[in-house]
Amino acid sequence: MSDAIDVLSAEADDHFHDECGVFGIFGRQDAAAIVTLGLHALQHRGQEAAGIVSFDETQFHVERHVGLIGDTFTKQSVIERLKGTRAIGHTRYATTGGAGLRNVQPFFAELADGGLAIAHNGNITNAMTVQRRLQKDGAIFSSTSDTETILHLVATSKERDVNSRFIEAVRQLEGAFSLVALTSKKLIGCRDPLGIRPLVLGDLDGAWILASETCALDIIGARFVRDLKPGEMVIVTSKGIESVFPFEPQKSRFCVFEYVYFARPDSSVEGRNVYDVRKRIGEELARENPVDADIVVPVPDSGTPAAIGFAQAAALPFELGIIRNHYVGRTFIQPTDSIRHMGVKLKHNANRRMLEGKRVVLVDDSIVRGTTSQKIVQMVREAGAREVHMRIASPPTRASCFYGVDTPETAKLLASRMSIEEMADFIRVDSLGFLSLDGLYRAVGENGRDADSPQFCDACFSTQYPTQLTDHEGVADNVRTLSLLAAGGQ
Amino acid sequence: MSDAIDVLSAEADDHFHDECGVFGIFGRQDAAAIVTLGLHALQHRGQEAAGIVSFDETQFHVERHVGLIGDTFTKQSVIERLKGTRAIGHTRYATTGGAGLRNVQPFFAELADGGLAIAHNGNITNAMTVQRRLQKDGAIFSSTSDTETILHLVATSKERDVNSRFIEAVRQLEGAFSLVALTSKKLIGCRDPLGIRPLVLGDLDGAWILASETCALDIIGARFVRDLKPGEMVIVTSKGIESVFPFEPQKSRFCVFEYVYFARPDSSVEGRNVYDVRKRIGEELARENPVDADIVVPVPDSGTPAAIGFAQAAALPFELGIIRNHYVGRTFIQPTDSIRHMGVKLKHNANRRMLEGKRVVLVDDSIVRGTTSQKIVQMVREAGAREVHMRIASPPTRASCFYGVDTPETAKLLASRMSIEEMADFIRVDSLGFLSLDGLYRAVGENGRDADSPQFCDACFSTQYPTQLTDHEGVADNVRTLSLLAAGGQ
Amino acid sequence: MSDAIDVLSAEADDHFHDECGVFGIFGRQDAAAIVTLGLHALQHRGQEAAGIVSFDETQFHVERHVGLIGDTFTKQSVIERLKGTRAIGHTRYATTGGAGLRNVQPFFAELADGGLAIAHNGNITNAMTVQRRLQKDGAIFSSTSDTETILHLVATSKERDVNSRFIEAVRQLEGAFSLVALTSKKLIGCRDPLGIRPLVLGDLDGAWILASETCALDIIGARFVRDLKPGEMVIVTSKGIESVFPFEPQKSRFCVFEYVYFARPDSSVEGRNVYDVRKRIGEELARENPVDADIVVPVPDSGTPAAIGFAQAAALPFELGIIRNHYVGRTFIQPTDSIRHMGVKLKHNANRRMLEGKRVVLVDDSIVRGTTSQKIVQMVREAGAREVHMRIASPPTRASCFYGVDTPETAKLLASRMSIEEMADFIRVDSLGFLSLDGLYRAVGENGRDADSPQFCDACFSTQYPTQLTDHEGVADNVRTLSLLAAGGQ
Amino acid sequence: MSDAIDVLSAEADDHFHDECGVFGIFGRQDAAAIVTLGLHALQHRGQEAAGIVSFDETQFHVERHVGLIGDTFTKQSVIERLKGTRAIGHTRYATTGGAGLRNVQPFFAELADGGLAIAHNGNITNAMTVQRRLQKDGAIFSSTSDTETILHLVATSKERDVNSRFIEAVRQLEGAFSLVALTSKKLIGCRDPLGIRPLVLGDLDGAWILASETCALDIIGARFVRDLKPGEMVIVTSKGIESVFPFEPQKSRFCVFEYVYFARPDSSVEGRNVYDVRKRIGEELARENPVDADIVVPVPDSGTPAAIGFAQAAALPFELGIIRNHYVGRTFIQPTDSIRHMGVKLKHNANRRMLEGKRVVLVDDSIVRGTTSQKIVQMVREAGAREVHMRIASPPTRASCFYGVDTPETAKLLASRMSIEEMADFIRVDSLGFLSLDGLYRAVGENGRDADSPQFCDACFSTQYPTQLTDHEGVADNVRTLSLLAAGGQ
Repeated sequence: MSDAIDVLSAEADDHFHDECGVFGIFGRQDAAAIVTLGLHALQHRGQEAAGIVSFDETQFHVERHVGLIGDTFTKQSVIERLKGTRAIGHTRYATTGGAGLRNVQPFFAELADGGLAIAHNGNITNAMTVQRRLQKDGAIFSSTSDTETILHLVATSKERDVNSRFIEAVRQLEGAFSLVALTSKKLIGCRDPLGIRPLVLGDLDGAWILASETCALDIIGARFVRDLKPGEMVIVTSKGIESVFPFEPQKSRFCVFEYVYFARPDSSVEGRNVYDVRKRIGEELARENPVDADIVVPVPDSGTPAAIGFAQAAALPFELGIIRNHYVGRTFIQPTDSIRHMGVKLKHNANRRMLEGKRVVLVDDSIVRGTTSQKIVQMVREAGAREVHMRIASPPTRASCFYGVDTPETAKLLASRMSIEEMADFIRVDSLGFLSLDGLYRAVGENGRDADSPQFCDACFSTQYPTQLTDHEGVADNVRTLSLLAAGGQ
Repeated sequence: MSDAIDVLSAEADDHFHDECGVFGIFGRQDAAAIVTLGLHALQHRGQEAAGIVSFDETQFHVERHVGLIGDTFTKQSVIERLKGTRAIGHTRYATTGGAGLRNVQPFFAELADGGLAIAHNGNITNAMTVQRRLQKDGAIFSSTSDTETILHLVATSKERDVNSRFIEAVRQLEGAFSLVALTSKKLIGCRDPLGIRPLVLGDLDGAWILASETCALDIIGARFVRDLKPGEMVIVTSKGIESVFPFEPQKSRFCVFEYVYFARPDSSVEGRNVYDVRKRIGEELARENPVDADIVVPVPDSGTPAAIGFAQAAALPFELGIIRNHYVGRTFIQPTDSIRHMGVKLKHNANRRMLEGKRVVLVDDSIVRGTTSQKIVQMVREAGAREVHMRIASPPTRASCFYGVDTPETAKLLASRMSIEEMADFIRVDSLGFLSLDGLYRAVGENGRDADSPQFCDACFSTQYPTQLTDHEGVADNVRTLSLLAAGGQ
Repeated sequence: MSDAIDVLSAEADDHFHDECGVFGIFGRQDAAAIVTLGLHALQHRGQEAAGIVSFDETQFHVERHVGLIGDTFTKQSVIERLKGTRAIGHTRYATTGGAGLRNVQPFFAELADGGLAIAHNGNITNAMTVQRRLQKDGAIFSSTSDTETILHLVATSKERDVNSRFIEAVRQLEGAFSLVALTSKKLIGCRDPLGIRPLVLGDLDGAWILASETCALDIIGARFVRDLKPGEMVIVTSKGIESVFPFEPQKSRFCVFEYVYFARPDSSVEGRNVYDVRKRIGEELARENPVDADIVVPVPDSGTPAAIGFAQAAALPFELGIIRNHYVGRTFIQPTDSIRHMGVKLKHNANRRMLEGKRVVLVDDSIVRGTTSQKIVQMVREAGAREVHMRIASPPTRASCFYGVDTPETAKLLASRMSIEEMADFIRVDSLGFLSLDGLYRAVGENGRDADSPQFCDACFSTQYPTQLTDHEGVADNVRTLSLLAAGGQ
Repeated sequence: MSDAIDVLSAEADDHFHDECGVFGIFGRQDAAAIVTLGLHALQHRGQEAAGIVSFDETQFHVERHVGLIGDTFTKQSVIERLKGTRAIGHTRYATTGGAGLRNVQPFFAELADGGLAIAHNGNITNAMTVQRRLQKDGAIFSSTSDTETILHLVATSKERDVNSRFIEAVRQLEGAFSLVALTSKKLIGCRDPLGIRPLVLGDLDGAWILASETCALDIIGARFVRDLKPGEMVIVTSKGIESVFPFEPQKSRFCVFEYVYFARPDSSVEGRNVYDVRKRIGEELARENPVDADIVVPVPDSGTPAAIGFAQAAALPFELGIIRNHYVGRTFIQPTDSIRHMGVKLKHNANRRMLEGKRVVLVDDSIVRGTTSQKIVQMVREAGAREVHMRIASPPTRASCFYGVDTPETAKLLASRMSIEEMADFIRVDSLGFLSLDGLYRAVGENGRDADSPQFCDACFSTQYPTQLTDHEGVADNVRTLSLLAAGGQ
């Protein structure tokens, strides 16, 4: 890794990234193979590593591997080791960089009354604060993951039964969490009280399934039952499914960026089809930011649905003016200076014949640092476009996310330090238009944003965070100076 | 590999596949890094393995690796070993299955007057016949590749200089070949007299480049100079470039399937932009096979340009009704029976919200065995489509290719044993329409097919092969019973 | 591993095995490289895996690898990651089989007041009992190693400073332990009150060293200072070295088997040179069990020093009548039945020319299951020996060890179920003689064994264990049914 | 490899090394498993890489791997791929450095009339000259091995049957060769007319075996039949064994250094037991170079048999004053300067207690560069030896070997540029004695060396080479400037 440039770095993949997908199934032969398929469908939520824990009525089995599901979990031997009819799995995006397999979920612990495995999508905003408290009482942490904090809270709970211990644990958490957990008797799913991250319930011929998105149900032909409700905890046992609500009821604040970029277009989350929302985003965008042009060109693949919607609303031809090379991995060769200056087009190439002499509307989902937009615009211009009008299928992203999304610090977000005009200059377009926050809410099906009580978490656009950020706010006091910098061979 | 099903097999990826891409550069610092980038752009022409040979004024250096360019040639150490300002490279599709690195090109031999490396796109249709003759004279072959036969022909030539020996060698070849070769003094490019496979000439700040397609020039910002002519051989030395024509002149017969599927949409080959041709194919298809429908949906990604063309010509909305999972690798888990019956959707998922209740035009590039079409149609129907009309962006494929393309035997091609009506029944569509051969020629810019002297090689559609098939015809006599079945650890 | 027979298994390597070697250094450039060399010298104490933790004034660094030191820790990159002037290391013998890197030491934990790493040679005989107590209070264990129990005891201690917490922890331990530990300020060494396992103190140009044996000092040219005393704890800081005695004083009970087999012949432990002791064992053996014979032949390599002593005392020629193949790894091919019956001689071969027609005294260090002795005797007979007299350089091994040695259960020890005559019959020798327990004590320099208060731990011979065996005795109650059976990819 | 010092380099392992061992079997189930065992017994003749070719009545199967037999050929899958009842194998020592698997034997070629595999111990002294001639006729070489030259000679022979073609080929060879070859019908063994390298014939329940040494028969319990005669070629078919003599009869010149160092002590080669010869060498050495001393200490392991002989002849105690660490691999850590100055003792450690105050006779097998001797003497002195007398179990090595042995160039041999007195000064001993050439011949059982017609090849001592050295003598003309420097990933 170290002798290659990271094409997903600022320069090359200029997006927010969801950090995780989770999947669980209870009561079905080949449970681990089904989890593997489910995680494969959730691969877009995390490509760095994955793990599966299964239980075979006697023992738990764990496999954790760095790499894509299709490369690491497809060996017959791996699947065969994951015996049993119950399993949970997790796929994750690289976050803080390379602590290796120790941070790969699910996390498993041998508690006094049996094993417990937890997989988590989201981010606990008071995890360090809680961890510090637990360490003072002698707890030993083997990872830097907030998920391990949840395990310790269950382990140290004085409640009698697992349900109560689990509830006592999650009540101490702040932030965003969609959890799946496995004990020797139960599959548990739980969403935070605001329901920031998605979690859906499915059914495969009588076996209950929990998954981050519906596309993970589709791949195996499972039936979508419903979204878990914000603050809901479901407990699946061999006797059936039970639902409890351990938290104070609160108004839902689902992450609106799931619709903009994170979720797969063929998924439905919180009752809405993602492709459909994205097309309507494109339509709203065309209405709010019309432009006199010849063709509409998406920045593939994430800009494509909005570009289709834009083209239909604007009655302009939709054309593949940029071709994406899907073989690009995470890294590529370390460039020498002479190669660096060549402006290598690893991931996108302009389709000159389509662009030459045209007035082009370029549609992308968002602008983060702006460096990729800059390069793409330059490439489109060099291919002969007469005018380049950039239309962005979301409002300007002004603030970091603390809810399980990999974002640059606020200061590195282009929109946090430039006006729209300055941004247009920076990426060198003839015009630049963003979707308004109200337009985004309309595309999702609302009449607009309720400013007093927003219907979604839109903190990255509005800077209004729906929860406390205990670790972040108490940072001077709480910052965890980890003694262990680097661990190799493990 | 053996403990997983091959998702590119009949069931899962029902396409013809080009077997190779080639790239060469002469006279440029970081030659091997540039070849790596060029091969990355040509990755769609072969994903199995790749090799690069460089020359540093004193020595040749060779690297061959199984896997994607971006995974195997991007380590700093690999590139650093490939010293020099001249290099050629090759990327290949798996053909006969697993003879390992021995069959990975470029091939290199130490001849009496110095080293010679050759990389080859195409297929020599008399290679076994020639090999048998050479073996009788004591030649030892270290691979089963037809490219090694070319090396031996150069090695045993009694001509004095390399140019003459190379010419004597290629004159003995039948079939399709676009070659790049490297000696201690020269970079050589050569196309067969019919020009069946593509080969383009480019220029990077004064360094000459040979590549299979223009997209390999674009990635490094090189200038497209021209296509090599059929039967042309170019010799690049430090003094410049020279062009000779070693063969009897013949009328060009470029492979028309390069436009249908093989080449990248952003490439231009033989003077035509591929995306543009594909869109015009879609337009011709709409004209020849109109249908009353609600939406046009591509089978992604190969059907997308034709679907855009179809939708524009038919004035129907273009919609992403099927979503492709780009994380699918070559193989996936070995299914148990219970999983096999689930009809797992590894690669494509229907976007139910777009399809429900609609009359759908499905556009795909070709039908090979028909099994994938069958599954996709079923998936689209299960997602609620009211009618499914399949439109195919090429004529029925009736015959195997012997010119460097991986095709099933003729008997396994659906169109070789069924009428269009029978095929429509087999894949269970409401209607099925193929592009006519004349329509295909029109889309490429001709007035139609010249039946007496076709302008392209269209043998897979017309069954008219433009060259002798010596090995194939003399198969009873010539078949090479290889003694060496399997070689491990090498 | 699973598709090969284990040549170190009962059939093939019929020995007790020490489970660990430890090494630490404080205050020296290239600390990790020096630990690597020290562990290499201690490789005979554990070949399965090794780990090193270093501290660079700011951060701890950890590397753990399965395999020989010389294969895994010799890459420049590994050593370079282990920055700092203080480091401890550990090499281990496979014990319970394959829990992977999770059980490889040193163990590291982030405690409330900083990092702590511990490496351990020995075995805590009440570890499970303590672990069960800690789990009831919510502690989460990430391994099955007794060393992690020590970490948890330090973590949960309510004492203020690390020294006091460490002392509180080790006072709760029963069994054998020679520990080295590293904090951000200190290198700590500690031996159990009986001093069962060795631990020596050395000095390299002013840098303090702790090591299991003196051969680990020799390899780097360090000066031997002294053995740590039983029950002694030394604390090295940048200000110097300090010694404390946290336990009730007890009479030393050093493991006498270290002299028989475990320690390297060139080491000195507890004041005695091992080779010298082994030669004197051979002399005692010759005196106690004289025999009329032609040559003395060692079972190489462990029987060699005693055979030299025996030959000198008996005035018989010492000859290499058996040759050992040092290339044997841990495993070899899975034999088919036809090969199994061939009686393959992977490790030892008879030197026919030396043995033919001779009356042979075979000298070996011990008999465990007896199966190897049986095979060797048969091989020597087949090579033409006229008589075979086996002489064993230790008393009969009658009982399992619970102090960090890999031994079969008592019932599988040949001497636990047979008289010496029966054993002689079983291994088919003309005569069989063991060293007496008193003879062994004399060879070590005592006048004999003090039956009321033995000077050494000789439980494997005498069945008299010097400590409580809490876990073992309370086994019905305490047995730890681990939920986690298998973990892959980690 | 490049980031570690090579402990087998001049500094660390100062020996000549035999380059190869060969083994073949015809007509026995599990043939490849038996070859694996045979090669394991021959591992001392080459540790770098190994290969096996089997034939299963239909197909040949090849496996070649870098590393020890016990690490690479012991996987069930490897053995299972090597189907058939006939197989040959080869183990090799690294020679010219890292051309990878291409140079690993056996070599296999598909000839016009079927497959042929050859494994070779020795060195063809006119290989480059022949290769150059073959290349002029168009032959393509895929390796730099002289064995491939033999294959090409068989391939280009115009004789009708394999026997005649093989004979025509070997008649063109100069130098030392003990070959085993496998065709679809035959197992062939052949020794050069001088019989420089060993080759023995064995029998395993009716299956014929060819092997470099008898220890490879012993490991599987095969019966030793006889040594092949110099210039003999045996052909094994399903009908039995046949012997022919294709060369002009010449007087045998077996390599005397096989007795000094190469062969395993338990082997018998050319009718003599190696351990026995080495002991008699020690006795001769004691007679020729007596010394007043206290103990005789071998430099382990190669000096051990001679030291035993010396001690018995001199009536001095034989003691293990130096202990060898058998875990040392080929390489170890890249030392920093500070570590380099520590004089790390990776491989040998002095046993201080045995050496202190003693007058020591150190016995080693040979002196090559002298650097290792220097270090060992220094180590023995630092351990307290009062006097160090070095006795070498062979004459001074004055000349390079061209017959398949890895030797430094003549100029780097200490004895080629120093008198014995100078050498004694250089390695800092109190006295230094070599065995005389006549003494060596006496130890082997001759009355002395026949100066007019020596009974052995002793060129490394006498500088009298028994064959022409065509390549070496014509070096200015013939030197083979290989174009291919380096090949990776293959």
